Amino acid sequence: MADKPKKPQKLRARLPRGLEDRDAVAIAATRRMTEKIREVFERYGFEPVETPAMEYTDALGKFLPDQDRPNEGVFSFQDDDEQWISLRYDLTAPLARYVAEHFDKLPKPYRSYRAGYVFRNEKPGPGRFRQFMQFDADTVGSASPAADAEMCMMAADTMEALGIPRGSYVVKVNNRKVLDGVMESIGLGGEENAGRRLTVLRAIDKLDRLGVEGVRQLLGEGRKDESGDFTKGAGLKENQIELLEKLYGHQESRSQDFFMAETDEIPAIADDRLLSSGNGPKLIIANPRFLDTYDQVFSKSELVLSGTKELREISSIVRSSEYGTQRIKIDVSVVRGLEYYTGPVYEVELLLDTVDEKGRPVRFGSVGGGGRYDGLVSRFRGEPVPATGFSIGVSRLQAALTLLGKLDARPEYGPVVVTVFDKDRVADYQKMVATLRNADIRAELYLGNPKNMGNQLKYADARNSPVAIVQGSNEREHAEGAQIIVQDLIAGRSIGADIADRDEYLKKKAAAQEMVPAGELVAKVREVLARYQVKWN
Amino acid sequence: MADKPKKPQKLRARLPRGLEDRDAVAIAATRRMTEKIREVFERYGFEPVETPAMEYTDALGKFLPDQDRPNEGVFSFQDDDEQWISLRYDLTAPLARYVAEHFDKLPKPYRSYRAGYVFRNEKPGPGRFRQFMQFDADTVGSASPAADAEMCMMAADTMEALGIPRGSYVVKVNNRKVLDGVMESIGLGGEENAGRRLTVLRAIDKLDRLGVEGVRQLLGEGRKDESGDFTKGAGLKENQIELLEKLYGHQESRSQDFFMAETDEIPAIADDRLLSSGNGPKLIIANPRFLDTYDQVFSKSELVLSGTKELREISSIVRSSEYGTQRIKIDVSVVRGLEYYTGPVYEVELLLDTVDEKGRPVRFGSVGGGGRYDGLVSRFRGEPVPATGFSIGVSRLQAALTLLGKLDARPEYGPVVVTVFDKDRVADYQKMVATLRNADIRAELYLGNPKNMGNQLKYADARNSPVAIVQGSNEREHAEGAQIIVQDLIAGRSIGADIADRDEYLKKKAAAQEMVPAGELVAKVREVLARYQVKWN
Repeated sequence: MADKPKKPQKLRARLPRGLEDRDAVAIAATRRMTEKIREVFERYGFEPVETPAMEYTDALGKFLPDQDRPNEGVFSFQDDDEQWISLRYDLTAPLARYVAEHFDKLPKPYRSYRAGYVFRNEKPGPGRFRQFMQFDADTVGSASPAADAEMCMMAADTMEALGIPRGSYVVKVNNRKVLDGVMESIGLGGEENAGRRLTVLRAIDKLDRLGVEGVRQLLGEGRKDESGDFTKGAGLKENQIELLEKLYGHQESRSQDFFMAETDEIPAIADDRLLSSGNGPKLIIANPRFLDTYDQVFSKSELVLSGTKELREISSIVRSSEYGTQRIKIDVSVVRGLEYYTGPVYEVELLLDTVDEKGRPVRFGSVGGGGRYDGLVSRFRGEPVPATGFSIGVSRLQAALTLLGKLDARPEYGPVVVTVFDKDRVADYQKMVATLRNADIRAELYLGNPKNMGNQLKYADARNSPVAIVQGSNEREHAEGAQIIVQDLIAGRSIGADIADRDEYLKKKAAAQEMVPAGELVAKVREVLARYQVKWN
Repeated sequence: MADKPKKPQKLRARLPRGLEDRDAVAIAATRRMTEKIREVFERYGFEPVETPAMEYTDALGKFLPDQDRPNEGVFSFQDDDEQWISLRYDLTAPLARYVAEHFDKLPKPYRSYRAGYVFRNEKPGPGRFRQFMQFDADTVGSASPAADAEMCMMAADTMEALGIPRGSYVVKVNNRKVLDGVMESIGLGGEENAGRRLTVLRAIDKLDRLGVEGVRQLLGEGRKDESGDFTKGAGLKENQIELLEKLYGHQESRSQDFFMAETDEIPAIADDRLLSSGNGPKLIIANPRFLDTYDQVFSKSELVLSGTKELREISSIVRSSEYGTQRIKIDVSVVRGLEYYTGPVYEVELLLDTVDEKGRPVRFGSVGGGGRYDGLVSRFRGEPVPATGFSIGVSRLQAALTLLGKLDARPEYGPVVVTVFDKDRVADYQKMVATLRNADIRAELYLGNPKNMGNQLKYADARNSPVAIVQGSNEREHAEGAQIIVQDLIAGRSIGADIADRDEYLKKKAAAQEMVPAGELVAKVREVLARYQVKWN
């Protein structure tokens, strides 16, 4: 026998790592989420604006954290005029370009929001995607801490609008000026110490996990973990570390008293609701005590003093609007990775724990954040343009809510399926479909190979269809005029599961269908849909 | 005098050509459009699925028309494992990859829809963008012309759902098999004639503009236009051209009788409404006469015969569902640029003319289309997987509707603006804002420099705000308790325009504001909003 001719090499259908397809349930969830976020952002007076997915590389700038790849975390290509273009890695850098380009025609302050996909050319990993959705709001042209305070309140309102109860999230606020001022004070200022500052910030970032002693090791010579792996430290001297502990040591001591720490002047504030009780609104000036400590320790640092002053103002504004520390709290461990922040920074943390598919505990942590980026628009304008913004990681938050079972994961009902009994009468069946659609009922003709009715009903089940329509010649040529069979598939599916006897099964199946005059198609289908309260979004 | 130190080079804020920013009005219009399209697609039984913006380059394939750029119309970059990744240039190729990858778990036929941005690395030009939105529906796993017929009906329904009246658009249907069969018949079959076939198809595509004689020149030696420019022709012989004229010549002759041509067996069909008059639904089998001509002229071509048979089936199905030729008509000049089409192709044409900003006439032409691509999923599966799909050019259609004045272009009302009279009382003003927001009223604090009240009100006007709130010390320390001033900015703006006298102007402005007790903030604002029926989407 001769060899069979070689089959041509098949192309393999696969996605690059770090990218994902999204099904109907995920898409519906995203739509519901973005609608709710939009509602909150618009209530806050932000108006929409959108920029394209790509920009000139130089316009985006290089502000990404953890640049462990050659092209620094962004996807880039050269245009035919040799200029480099990149996919946006966030929605802030493009907004800065937009505002700078259209500066004169925009109202100032310029308050806008936008949702969109952003792209990171990172090493993909579990839960780490190279395309994900963010939803941002920004106020450009305001230097006031009130603009930052507003972002924090909006973040809190957004989380609650998304169904995350108070106490299950917290908005943590810090100020880069405090961090930068402290660094300067311990001799780590200046361009030449940028690398070491990063090591220090990353060490402090690990406070929750490693505790004071672990961080101390990372700030000094280094730390050996349980597995014996050694991480080289920042090499700080003992007196430098001691000063830093003034900064973050406080953080740990107050973990016992999570909701009270920075508002202990006002005991009632632990429960936000107590704030609005009593006779009308009260103005409560919170005075986070640990900020006083910073002022004393770093009393010579203009940056620290300016940073704590802003934090007090933010605290005062949010408390007077009755946002207690359960919702918004000052937390000096917040760093935020992006390099462009210059003042207050905020982070929304999900306080819910769960386990993943393999039973391992998952702490979601940050699902959004932002901060003040006074330098980003100035790059284009050559004049100071203060700005602050907040970003929700929609994809990340959705992943978290999905894992927590907090998103509606039920598939929608599929369309009514009109089956093809007689393949020469496709046009007739299609007409029934058109009739249903004209009555605003989701419907379709079975478009596969019609030779097997069983396959058609299997298809309707796979689509989660509530109703199937059948018309054979018996029905069509019925003595009392043309008839149709309307099958209640929801009833049909429910009786399928627990019946072992084939005859009984078939009998029950038969009971879930009804023959009616063809003219009653719409009325009968509506009746079945009403029976199960079938509502398509 | 010493030279001033040089300013650091400013970065220029600009977008790469062919990309655009979108403002609030455009975004709202897109949202309304996509919601309506979605409604229609779901009524037709399609369910959503989304793929990411990028794919492996080989998975997308090279099917773009007019590849006059080195990297063939797509944006591409190399991953760190050396594999090439491209931004999707349409939503069909990624869908084919998706279906092939998840084939076994999907219901067959698989009916899905999706909206998203696609990217073309083309020479940008007026109205030609490198990022634009498409909204697609596809049926994979059905070889039935009923699937194609359905796409055409859905295209028509979608146009009407978008507010484009019947008669202002038409869905034109053709079949690649007819085109390919005719090419074969005149000796232009085979891989080696691909280039010439393209020249011929492009010539036929210009029939509307150049007429039969112009096309004849392009098919032969070439054509000199009015400006004296010469376009080289396809170099066909006289007998080849004559045969081709059988194909497209018909097209011109029936332009006199636009809506009647292919349904002249049924005079009443010129007006679709007549179809459903009379006693109940009638089955009307349209027999487009010119298809008979093709069958006679190209009677030896299996491809032509198979193509005309499918077109008759499509015609029969859409007519029986009462879609007349005003909505869906067979038109052999339809080519569709993408290379992957294998059978019926359809195009939605906007029949409205207008003029652009410079007064030049604009014919919009195609705003959507699609066709059968039986080979696209098969590339991955190594087995035949028939498929057909339809795509609406959302961006293109929106541009057309905007130019036609058919989209709501009025800006929305902005938020209520609470002004800052006394900069030490920001927290108090912010509290008023929070009160309004809690009452579901869009509101914001003025976050710019508060020193000038005029600037604050100018800002509120720029935002198109309906109301501004002012509270100075006079109001706050009022004898009858704290008061606020509620300014009706809509009234204020309307009296501004026609009054020359400054005193009268100020008097009228004053009349548009009212002092009320601070506790009536929400009630009073609601009253003004109700006065003008201010509704935020």
